[in-house]
Amino acid sequence: MTKQSIRRQHSVRGLPKPPGPFSWTATWGDMLFVSGLRGIDPATGFPAQTDEERVQLIFQHLAHALEEGGSSLRHVLSTRVYVTDMQRHRPMINEAYERNFGDDLPTRTIVEVHALNQDDTIELEAVAARVA
Amino acid sequence: MTKQSIRRQHSVRGLPKPPGPFSWTATWGDMLFVSGLRGIDPATGFPAQTDEERVQLIFQHLAHALEEGGSSLRHVLSTRVYVTDMQRHRPMINEAYERNFGDDLPTRTIVEVHALNQDDTIELEAVAARVA
Amino acid sequence: MTKQSIRRQHSVRGLPKPPGPFSWTATWGDMLFVSGLRGIDPATGFPAQTDEERVQLIFQHLAHALEEGGSSLRHVLSTRVYVTDMQRHRPMINEAYERNFGDDLPTRTIVEVHALNQDDTIELEAVAARVA
Repeated sequence: MTKQSIRRQHSVRGLPKPPGPFSWTATWGDMLFVSGLRGIDPATGFPAQTDEERVQLIFQHLAHALEEGGSSLRHVLSTRVYVTDMQRHRPMINEAYERNFGDDLPTRTIVEVHALNQDDTIELEAVAARVA
Repeated sequence: MTKQSIRRQHSVRGLPKPPGPFSWTATWGDMLFVSGLRGIDPATGFPAQTDEERVQLIFQHLAHALEEGGSSLRHVLSTRVYVTDMQRHRPMINEAYERNFGDDLPTRTIVEVHALNQDDTIELEAVAARVA
Repeated sequence: MTKQSIRRQHSVRGLPKPPGPFSWTATWGDMLFVSGLRGIDPATGFPAQTDEERVQLIFQHLAHALEEGGSSLRHVLSTRVYVTDMQRHRPMINEAYERNFGDDLPTRTIVEVHALNQDDTIELEAVAARVA
């Protein structure tokens, strides 16, 4: 096992400050862990107004977090999606997966939960492979 | 770090087609990630009628997914179980863990969520070690 | 890839017996997976009375589980926190993250779910780097 160390990123270009005491990303060897991402507008620190804007922001944030961690949208292994309305949000998520991941679809679990922080509606968490 | 690549399986023998744009499994080095599995009957594409049948199908699907990813029920590291009725489903899950995992019990988190896709009742997600 | 094997711990010093058929920890190479931890008092096998005591016990249990798995609170990569009341529990969790993780903040996802086992209120699951 090569000697290696954990690298954490509290601050990621394009993302808001983490809304709590956690890191946006942590890397260990060739693995990258990404915190639950919500559609927070970096300009305001609050969730964007519409669900459509939130989904778009989540994937923007994900692309930035992956890039700074030595990965990309092509190299996501595992995702968990938490929504507050399965009927309404799942089709939006599906459309965004097709557009953003193309043929490199990660594994996925999607569940409807009771609530998210800041009364938000959609959150996405990922594990990715580091290739850079 | 050995040069390696991600392998994804969208189609797994014995499993239904994924009910959305995601892969059933993704492998990276000696790790295997498995999407949330529900008790979908491959013949119909819908959840089986009873919770008992669903639990049985979940473990059938899990065994197939693990096998095609170079792992097995003996090599599961981590599981997350999402149910819609903790009192009712947890004992069924416990019984299935004992029967299917034997002495090789993985780690587990079980939570009761508001809803799953297709109004399903039980979903299980896993991370496993690749040994083949 | 070095020949290696999975190590599971069903029994961890300082923790109660697992309240179901699962292991508290599983290790694979330089990775450690920890089951969802709740504020179970090892003396009674039931959740402690107050949320404050539960959070304190969760981090005690986590420190023990990490230590026996060759890791520590300094080496946690990824956490998922499940609460039954976001407004009430998130500030307690934030305070505990700052106190226990210091500058080595892991990634985090926090969601409000419908229920946990034993009518508990807070559960925390972790993936950590093994360094010993």
